[in-house]
Parts: sequence; C-alpha cells; structure tokens
Amino acid sequence: MKALEMQVAGGPEALRFSNRPTPSVAADELLLRVRCAALNYRDWDILRGAYGSFQLPLVLGSDAVAEVVQVGHGVTRFAVGERVLPTDTPDWITGPPDETRIARRLGGPLDGVLAELISVSAEAAVRAPAHLGDEEASTLAGAGVTAWQALYGSGGLEPGHTVVVQGTGGVSLFALQLARFGGANVIVLSRSAQKLERALALGATFGVDTRRTPEWQHEVLRLTNGRGADLVLDVLGGTAVARSIAATRVGGRVALLGFLEDGTAVLDLKQAIRRSVTLATSSGRSRDMFEALVRAFEAGGLHPVIDRSFAFQDAAAAFAHLASGAAFGKIVVRIAGPGEGTPPGPIDSRLAGS
Amino acid sequence: MKALEMQVAGGPEALRFSNRPTPSVAADELLLRVRCAALNYRDWDILRGAYGSFQLPLVLGSDAVAEVVQVGHGVTRFAVGERVLPTDTPDWITGPPDETRIARRLGGPLDGVLAELISVSAEAAVRAPAHLGDEEASTLAGAGVTAWQALYGSGGLEPGHTVVVQGTGGVSLFALQLARFGGANVIVLSRSAQKLERALALGATFGVDTRRTPEWQHEVLRLTNGRGADLVLDVLGGTAVARSIAATRVGGRVALLGFLEDGTAVLDLKQAIRRSVTLATSSGRSRDMFEALVRAFEAGGLHPVIDRSFAFQDAAAAFAHLASGAAFGKIVVRIAGPGEGTPPGPIDSRLAGS
Amino acid sequence: MKALEMQVAGGPEALRFSNRPTPSVAADELLLRVRCAALNYRDWDILRGAYGSFQLPLVLGSDAVAEVVQVGHGVTRFAVGERVLPTDTPDWITGPPDETRIARRLGGPLDGVLAELISVSAEAAVRAPAHLGDEEASTLAGAGVTAWQALYGSGGLEPGHTVVVQGTGGVSLFALQLARFGGANVIVLSRSAQKLERALALGATFGVDTRRTPEWQHEVLRLTNGRGADLVLDVLGGTAVARSIAATRVGGRVALLGFLEDGTAVLDLKQAIRRSVTLATSSGRSRDMFEALVRAFEAGGLHPVIDRSFAFQDAAAAFAHLASGAAFGKIVVRIAGPGEGTPPGPIDSRLAGS
Amino acid sequence: MKALEMQVAGGPEALRFSNRPTPSVAADELLLRVRCAALNYRDWDILRGAYGSFQLPLVLGSDAVAEVVQVGHGVTRFAVGERVLPTDTPDWITGPPDETRIARRLGGPLDGVLAELISVSAEAAVRAPAHLGDEEASTLAGAGVTAWQALYGSGGLEPGHTVVVQGTGGVSLFALQLARFGGANVIVLSRSAQKLERALALGATFGVDTRRTPEWQHEVLRLTNGRGADLVLDVLGGTAVARSIAATRVGGRVALLGFLEDGTAVLDLKQAIRRSVTLATSSGRSRDMFEALVRAFEAGGLHPVIDRSFAFQDAAAAFAHLASGAAFGKIVVRIAGPGEGTPPGPIDSRLAGS
Repeated sequence: MKALEMQVAGGPEALRFSNRPTPSVAADELLLRVRCAALNYRDWDILRGAYGSFQLPLVLGSDAVAEVVQVGHGVTRFAVGERVLPTDTPDWITGPPDETRIARRLGGPLDGVLAELISVSAEAAVRAPAHLGDEEASTLAGAGVTAWQALYGSGGLEPGHTVVVQGTGGVSLFALQLARFGGANVIVLSRSAQKLERALALGATFGVDTRRTPEWQHEVLRLTNGRGADLVLDVLGGTAVARSIAATRVGGRVALLGFLEDGTAVLDLKQAIRRSVTLATSSGRSRDMFEALVRAFEAGGLHPVIDRSFAFQDAAAAFAHLASGAAFGKIVVRIAGPGEGTPPGPIDSRLAGS
Repeated sequence: MKALEMQVAGGPEALRFSNRPTPSVAADELLLRVRCAALNYRDWDILRGAYGSFQLPLVLGSDAVAEVVQVGHGVTRFAVGERVLPTDTPDWITGPPDETRIARRLGGPLDGVLAELISVSAEAAVRAPAHLGDEEASTLAGAGVTAWQALYGSGGLEPGHTVVVQGTGGVSLFALQLARFGGANVIVLSRSAQKLERALALGATFGVDTRRTPEWQHEVLRLTNGRGADLVLDVLGGTAVARSIAATRVGGRVALLGFLEDGTAVLDLKQAIRRSVTLATSSGRSRDMFEALVRAFEAGGLHPVIDRSFAFQDAAAAFAHLASGAAFGKIVVRIAGPGEGTPPGPIDSRLAGS
Repeated sequence: MKALEMQVAGGPEALRFSNRPTPSVAADELLLRVRCAALNYRDWDILRGAYGSFQLPLVLGSDAVAEVVQVGHGVTRFAVGERVLPTDTPDWITGPPDETRIARRLGGPLDGVLAELISVSAEAAVRAPAHLGDEEASTLAGAGVTAWQALYGSGGLEPGHTVVVQGTGGVSLFALQLARFGGANVIVLSRSAQKLERALALGATFGVDTRRTPEWQHEVLRLTNGRGADLVLDVLGGTAVARSIAATRVGGRVALLGFLEDGTAVLDLKQAIRRSVTLATSSGRSRDMFEALVRAFEAGGLHPVIDRSFAFQDAAAAFAHLASGAAFGKIVVRIAGPGEGTPPGPIDSRLAGS
Repeated sequence: MKALEMQVAGGPEALRFSNRPTPSVAADELLLRVRCAALNYRDWDILRGAYGSFQLPLVLGSDAVAEVVQVGHGVTRFAVGERVLPTDTPDWITGPPDETRIARRLGGPLDGVLAELISVSAEAAVRAPAHLGDEEASTLAGAGVTAWQALYGSGGLEPGHTVVVQGTGGVSLFALQLARFGGANVIVLSRSAQKLERALALGATFGVDTRRTPEWQHEVLRLTNGRGADLVLDVLGGTAVARSIAATRVGGRVALLGFLEDGTAVLDLKQAIRRSVTLATSSGRSRDMFEALVRAFEAGGLHPVIDRSFAFQDAAAAFAHLASGAAFGKIVVRIAGPGEGTPPGPIDSRLAGS
C-alpha cells in the first residue's frame, strides 16, 4: 500500500511515496483505510526539522477519517465498515496527561496517517459524526481537539465570556466556531481585512485588523468595557505574549498554543502578576476530549472550515500551501473515496492475541 | 409609599397594602423606585407559612427591576436614573457562600420588593440589560440566577452536554434557554403536551410527556444512547429523585433545586453510589453569578419567558396564579412605569452612614 | 490452586474451598500469587445477597497484596518477583468514571482475590509500598482508596479544614490517618468510649461519644465555632444523613460512602438547600487515585490499622468477625507467606497476544 | 503619631519619620495600634522605585499585627482590645480577583503599616492566631498568604505531592512549612549549604545546593523517579524559568511568584507545551485565603520563621538587611509592645461614615 514518507528533513520536496506492506492487526487493533487526512503546522515543523528529530523514514500526519476494513479478534468497540477518526495521541484515553500517555503521537514518533492503510488500537479511535463529509471529518483530531481543550478543557469558558483568537488558522477557526456555539463572544485578530470579513461571516463578534491596530490589546479592553478578555488563545508566542496578557482580564487565562520561528515566549512578569493571569499549555489530546468535541459538533450540527483539498499524489503541494500561511481553515489530502481503494490484500496479522 | 405586606401566614387574602415611610438611604445605599417585581415559589411558600417563620408584617418579593432615584453620598457605582436589578442575597457579592453571606434575603427575613420604593446597598445591585423591557428584566434575580448557578456555577455544563429540566416553571425555562444558548441538548419533562409544544418551540431538543411516560428516566437513557444526562435539574424532590439519579450518567450531577409538599428527598443510596452521582444544592445567589447571567443574556440577546403580568393592585391574584401551577414562565407584578410614581418625598436619610 | 468460593447467598457457612486450575495469563497480564487479602463490608453484603446478584460460584475479595510469578509476553510494567497491589476496578485507570470503566470489579462480578493465584491486567496493579508488611499492604485498595477519593479526589481537603468520620471501620480509620497527615482536624464519632480512646491515640483531634451525644451535629458545630465541618464522611445513610448535613458548613460537602440495612438516605431538602451542601457519592476507584494514595502513604510513612488477621483456612471466621461490626481497623486473611505456595504448575496460557 | 515615610525613591536613607495626625475612623472601620510590622521585597522594590510609581510621601509596609483601640459605630466584627492582622489587599474579601478588588494595597498605593496608628475597614482584618507572639503574627499577611495561595489556592497540593521551593526567603519558608504540614514532599534549592541545613532542620525532604548543581532540574527529576515535581514555586523569573518547567511533571504547575532585576521570564514554549505545564501568577490576596492560612497555622500549631527583628527607630537598617538577601525567614520591625504606646488622643473621626 502507498504511504507518503518524510525521508530527510526539508521542504515539500523531501516527501516521497513508498510502497509498504499492509500493516499487521493485533487482537485489539483496527485496520483502517484512510479516506482523508488533514494537515497541521506540527507536520510542517517536523518535516522541516524544527520539531525535534524522529527516526526516518516517517509517515507524517495525525488527523484523518478512515473506514474500518478489519478488526482484531478481541475488538468489540467497532465493526468493519464503520467510519472512524483515529486519536492522534493513542495512549491518552482520559484523565490528566502524564509522560507515558503523551509520548506516542501519530505522525511522529509513530508513523502517521498519510497512507492508504494504517492500524490503530480500537481504543484510540472515535466514531465519525454522521453529518460530516470525509473532508470535514478528517480535520477534527488535531486542531479541533486543541481548540476544544483550550476553551473547555482547561479554559472553563462560559456563555457570555469573551475569547480572543489570533489569526484564521485551523485552531483559531475551530475555537471561533466552538466558542460561539457555547455562547461566548469572540474577537478575531488578523492582518487581513478579507479574512476578518470571512471570520465575521462565520459568527465572530468583533474583528480587529492588527495591521492597522498593532497594539490590539487596547482595542480588546475597549470592546470589553475595560475588563479584558476571559481567555486569549495565543498562537504566536515571542514578545507578543505581552499583548495577550494585557488583553486578558484580571484573573483570566492565556492559552499558549503555538509559536513563530524561535519558539520562546517572553513575559513581562510584573504585568502578568499584576493581572493574576494563568498561562496554560498542553500537549496531545485525550480520547475523552475528542468525544466531547464530537458531541458538541453533533449537538450544533457544526461544520469545520475547509480551505482546500488536494489529491494524495499532490500532497507535497498541500504542504507547500500550508507553509505559505495563506489558508483560511484546514488543508485536506484526499486518499480514498468511499468504496475506493484496492482490497487490503493478504494481511500479516498476528496469529492470536489477548 | 405603598407596600404589599404579608400580615399573617395564609393564602393570597393574607396580603394587605400598607402605607410606609420612604426608606432611609445610608451613605452606601441606593433608593430605588420599583418598576416591576417577579414572583417565585419561595414567595408563595413563605406566604403560606411553609418556609420557616419570619417577623411580620413582611414585604414579600425578591426579584425586581427598579430605577435609581437617590444615591447615598458615598456611592459611585450607580447614578440617579439608571435602571438596576437588586440582588436577592445582598451580602453575597462573590466567592463561595458562608453563613453570613446568605443569611439576609429580600422578601424574608428582609423586607422585599413588592413596594413602590426600596433601599438597597449599592453593592447589591447590577445594571439591567438594555435590551430587556421592565417586565422581562424583573425576572432575572431569582429563577434566572438559580438556573445559571445550577448549569454553570456548580454544574460545569459544556457544549454537547445533555441537561434534563422538570416542568416549565421559571427556573426550568431559564435553564432551557441558557443551556441551549451554551450549546447543550435539553430534554424537557412535562405532564402537559401543550407545554411540551411550547418548550420545543423555545428550542428544547426533546420533550417527554411524563403523564404518558411516568418512568421517564428510561426515555432519557434512550435519548442519550444509554449514557444518561450530564445534569438533571430536580425541582420535585421526594421519592422521584430516584428517577433523576437513574437518568444521570455515571459521574454526572443532579441539582436539587426545589421540592413539593413535604420537603424531603429519598435516595436509593445503592443506585446513587453505583452511578457515582453528585447531588448539589444551593441557597442564595452571589452578585458575581448575577453579573455572569447578565453577560450571557446580553451576549445572546436572550429574553425571559413571561407568563403573565398583573397590576400592583392585583398582586393577590398574581399569587393565586402562581399557586395554581399553571404558569408557563414568570409571573410579573407591574408597580410603576418609566417616569411614573410620585416623587419620593422628604427622605428620612440617616445622618451617619452604615 | 485453592480458592474460596461463595456458592450460594448466605452467611460465612456459604463459603467453600474449591480447587481451580491455574488462571491463564494473556499477553498483557500478570499471574499473581496472593499473599494476603483484606475484607470489606461489600464482600459481606455480596455474600449475604444484599448487593445485587452475581453469577455463582464467585470468588470474593477485592483487596490484596501479591507477588508476580509470571508476566505475559507483552508486559513491561512489572517483573517476576515484584510485590503488587491489584486495583479493584481493573478497567478504570484514570480520569472520571464511566459505565465501562466501573462495570467490572474484583470480588463480583469478576472473581476476586481470596485465591492462591489470580491473573490481572498489568495495567490494573500498582507497586506495593516497601515500608508496609504484607498484612498492611493488602488493605489499601478498597477502604484506603475510598477514603482518599472522598478526602482528596472529590472533597478538596486542605490543611486546617475539619472532617467528621463516623465510627472506626476501615474507611473511617484510613480517612482519619490521611486527613491528619494532610493537616486537617478530624472529629471521630463512635458509640464506644474505648474506640474513641484508640482513635484519639491515632491522632484524632476530637472524639464524640454518640451514645452519650446522639445529636452529635451540635457538638460538631460547637467544636468548629459554629461554622460546621468542611466535610463529613457519612457511612450510615438513612435518616441520620440529616445530622451529617446539619454538621456541615454552609457550602460544605457530605460524602455518602455507605449505608446500614435499607440502603436509602432521607434528606431534609430545606436544610440541605439552606446550607448549600453538596452530597457526593462514588463507585469504584481508579488506578491514578490508588497511586496517589500510595505516594501519600510513602511520604508519611503511614501504616494502616489492622484489627486482626486470619489464616486462609479460617476465612469464614474472618467474615463472621467482619459481620460482627466489632473490628477497629481492617480484617486480613493470610494466604501465602513470602516464598510460600506451591509453584503455579503447568499454565494454560494463551499462545500469543497483543 | 509617628510614621515612617518614603519621601523619594532611593535606598534606606530615603526613609524619614514624620508626625501625622491620628487617622480618622469611619463607621465601618477600626483604629489599630500597630505592634509589629514585617517587611517584604515588594516594600524594598517600591522604595527603590522598581515597582511602579506611587504618590509620595508614602508609608510603606503591608504586613502587621495590631491591637484594636477604637471601632466605628457600625462595627460588630471586632472589639477594642482584640489583636488583629490587617489584610494587605483590603477590598478583596473572597472569590476570584478583579480589577476593583486588587487595586488598593497597603504600603502602596495606600499608606501602609509602618506607623504607630492606622485605620482599616473592619472587613479587612482577621483575628491573630493566639499561639503566635507579635513578631510571628506580623509576618503572615504577605509571604504567608502568598505561599498558601500558590500551594492550595491555585496549586491544588495534595498529600504525597512534591513541591520545589527556591531559596529561603519569606515565601519559600512559609511554603516549606505549609507543604510539609499538608503532607507533601518539599525540595529546597539554595546556593548556601548552611541555609540548606536549616531548611532540612525545618522539615524539608531534600535540599539541592544550586552552587554545586546549577542544573538542578535534573536532580529534581532524579528525586522524583523521573516524574518531576507537581508544583514549582519560582521566585527568580528570567531565563531560569526554563529549569522550573523542566523540573515539573507533565501536567504540573509552576507558580511565578517573583523575579530578579529585569522582571521578565523567558519560556521555551516547545518545552512548556511538551510538558503541558500551567504557569500561574497572582496579585494580592483575599481575606478568605488569609483566614484559611490562619486555620492551617492553628491546626498545626505552626510558627513562622523570624530572621531578625528591629526597633522602629532602626527600620532603615531593617530595609538594608532585607536588601542584602542574607535573611533566612522574615524581618520584623517592632513598633509597640502590648500596652505600650501613647493613647491615640483626640480623634478626628468622620461624622458620617463611608
């Protein structure tokens, strides 16, 4: 079966298709035919060598929707033919994180989802929401659950709260949708007037053009009658974190979700302490959070925002598009349509299991 | 000024209008002209002597909207002319409850709001939402904040959760609106098919006719794929609490908010323990919760459900209507329209402050 | 290998020894030689048929210390020779409970630990604290983790808080030790002056003889300067829960952990609501809680209180002693000393597994 | 009455004694004769102009023990002759912080406690623990409550957890005592072998000499079997925060409590995100927290660590000693012994209260 491998660190050109054997399926595992995979900046950072070093070749990608084509003999959770979403942190089912729960991640260090067939633990997948098409469903695992966790897992968002989201990448747009669905006000920041228009059309309460208002924290204070936002989702890091803190209400929260080039954040401690701000980070995502996200998507009939989809053979172009930063929403790679794909062929399944 | 007094325990006929002096206004207080007051079952229970004994005569009523007609010389929080909502538990501003914060309540033991003029601490009032008319705004303090507290204060409701509300009284309808606004599914129980229709029109996800399905807990389990509701708001007490517990998911929560005649609840402990259910109660409401409710109402442009309003002189009929249990939504007493009401007259303000 | 079976519901005489084959060991399992098992009231309730019905014959017992005698080929968590404590709810590793995590329990519906050899998932065991002897270590899983969960899992106990514990059974004595180690004041209730003496010797801050002071809630209020206890661990249920609620501070917590004969609790809702009390229940225990308990026992060098131990052949007498209610602390059954026990013999292990 | 004023920014020489009128006492206030005051780095930072600018002259100092010498006519909370501790953030009684609750602080912008007589709101004081002498009792408000808040307010410390404290200043020693009293393990870091000795004598579980082990995070990981500390109290800020994060367990917490010269903290976001660490800050302290601290001190019979006390006339020397960083524990200024002090004299009390 075909898989897209990162063979060396580099740009999109460092990706190569290879032929791999059909994965084995242990007693508690599922064999999945991947229909669509969605990209995240983490994939790009790993590819260009900016996210630690992993054993190569590595199949990238952590987010996908797939069809169950075979189940291990101990599996009762899913049946052949069901449409599922693998969790990207397969050992983290529920509860708080710990070292062993977050160590293994799809798309590095584990082989990821940019492949025709993958096998995962039956515990490490959730049912795909029926109202979502394949392209949409493929995008939830990473950006969707990250946004959920920042808003509801650690953020304690309530109806009537105000959230700030930076830019219009995948996490920010999921956060916009989920926070609005949960009754919160959402202030979107962007350097593009056009993207702000689209964010407002998606339901954003306010948009701030940071090209015209680089000191946007003052505008957030103004829009919240001087109180500040209850929660700011910071995806930039660096010295700009000072603005996120200044825009947060006393006793509020900043979620540090990402960073630009150098990967540091510089805090003005006097300011952070003065405002009693809590700075939250998180790594990986539990299946419980994923199921909570799915319930919210189903309750609201929500649909993720897709920027563009690419055929599997054009996956390198999808990475290039991701790297350009131009996307509004998620970038998807289509691997197999429903009913498509060759049969998995002779499977080297382990003979017995527990 | 005119006030409606409970002079003995009894039915609506035990209420009498009296003439009282204009209340004094201490340095940290507001003098308010009440525009509308809303009734709660607590008022009825106090009137008929079923809620402990208070010093009589007593002015009933805890929920109102009013206009500031005078401010004590130390007040900066409000100005004359503003429209405010008194908090019903004036000493509880924020944080967890304690004995001293919840002891004093409007409408018993303190004189309440069924009067033309009242004075309250400036700290014990919040700004009325501008988008609500007087009848609507008067209903938030009691039933609204109780619903808020049960859902978001102790209940930790999230988008995608499922809540059960019993009947269509004030608290239940506020809970329906707020939970839907917060992205939750809401199952409404009622013995009236007609009221279920109205609840569904208000946005309820499901309605269960408990006259036809008295063992409604099974239906809740069915509607939640066997999982049970995340939160059940129980307003009945008695042996029926067993149904609320059986309808709650493992690890879920039942809010015990009210009771019918005898004021007890009988738990099957084996069942409650088996389902790891937490039973939450609460008394009184902090100003912080009230402000959170107001922010949610403003964020959503929500409007409370008014069953019917009565002129002040017909307040006894309003109590009779409350006692009938027939209302769908809140019952309001109109006391003075905007600009109405005689001037407060010479005020016997205390010379030295509070 | 020898196991003690409940063959019909009844008294201690309904227990019979049987010879069972050595349990099979799947790839992710441990084969354990049980050294000591500790009894809980749940065992007694199951035996006499008062805790639901289970498939018989059933090996009772959920708490044990054991030695690893074989590991499945996929196990890395433990090695042969290590001393471990099985968790009594093997599918609940971490996080909140749900239906699937709490369904299976040792000692019913699963066969329990009153046997020479048992097999458990390697994930469903924790390392035994080195400073505890076998009799001591065997007692932690049930009563110890229940006390931990009530105090620190849901109870949020802090140094300087006050806890009330009822009687001197296993859970109450663990709670006494753990709450004192955590800096809380502990008020012990007992109908026996002699047991109160022993509780005070163990560190209880105050003892209340409920034979002489049946309305003990007033004494708790007196001892807390009228404030009430932060947390009451109720193991009686019934109408006496009203006393627990009356003894709890406004906004405090009652943990409903057990019950006498009829298994109900009758709440005065007016009182519960007036005091804003939360009533918490729980079923089963996660491995995370167990590990937290072990860390606390190690940090404090704590030792559980053992009432008495019995040889395996006298296990029926141990149940009779448990049923008498006379014990002060845990009752232990000694099954095999270190190095004792016949070798497990030919093992019918599954050939391969995951 | 005599007060110590900061008249310009500068060193200890910028302090001057002045004669001020006896403070007025509003209806809800207490007039207090200060017995002892304790110093904090915040006082030193304000004096040297490194903590924002305040209106001068300013009486410094936020921590004191005092005797009630007069009560406003509306006060019932305290009586003349009682020994009390003013809260340093007088408007923050309970609940979460907000802008209005934390704006006013004793010792800047409000006049502080380095004076013979002060007046405070009766709500803004707590009863002094009877078992503490005046020097001891004076130290609780600032460093004590800060440590409490970091450990139990936001930190959720449990018995068996591990905490790291940096150095042996006031907050660190309070944290050491309180965490040990609450059953946690405490690792103390210091550049002085002698101070480590003293910390171990106070009960620290481990000491790490950071002069010999500058990369102390590895030692913390080693001492916690690779898991990391549950909570690190960081008082240094700067680039060293990276070590605090590396020493924290996955999902753990770093409390950012202070800073050296430049007042920034530089985070390695990749590392912080990888470890899912939460960074908590806080400003000011509520009366509820102070009362919780007092209950813990009383429950444990704890005594604060006093480094040295100075007579009022030597207060400048006390500041110089604070600035030297040599202290092990708190530095106290003795202002009046019990029964000492001239009578407050004719009081210019306001006629009508606030």
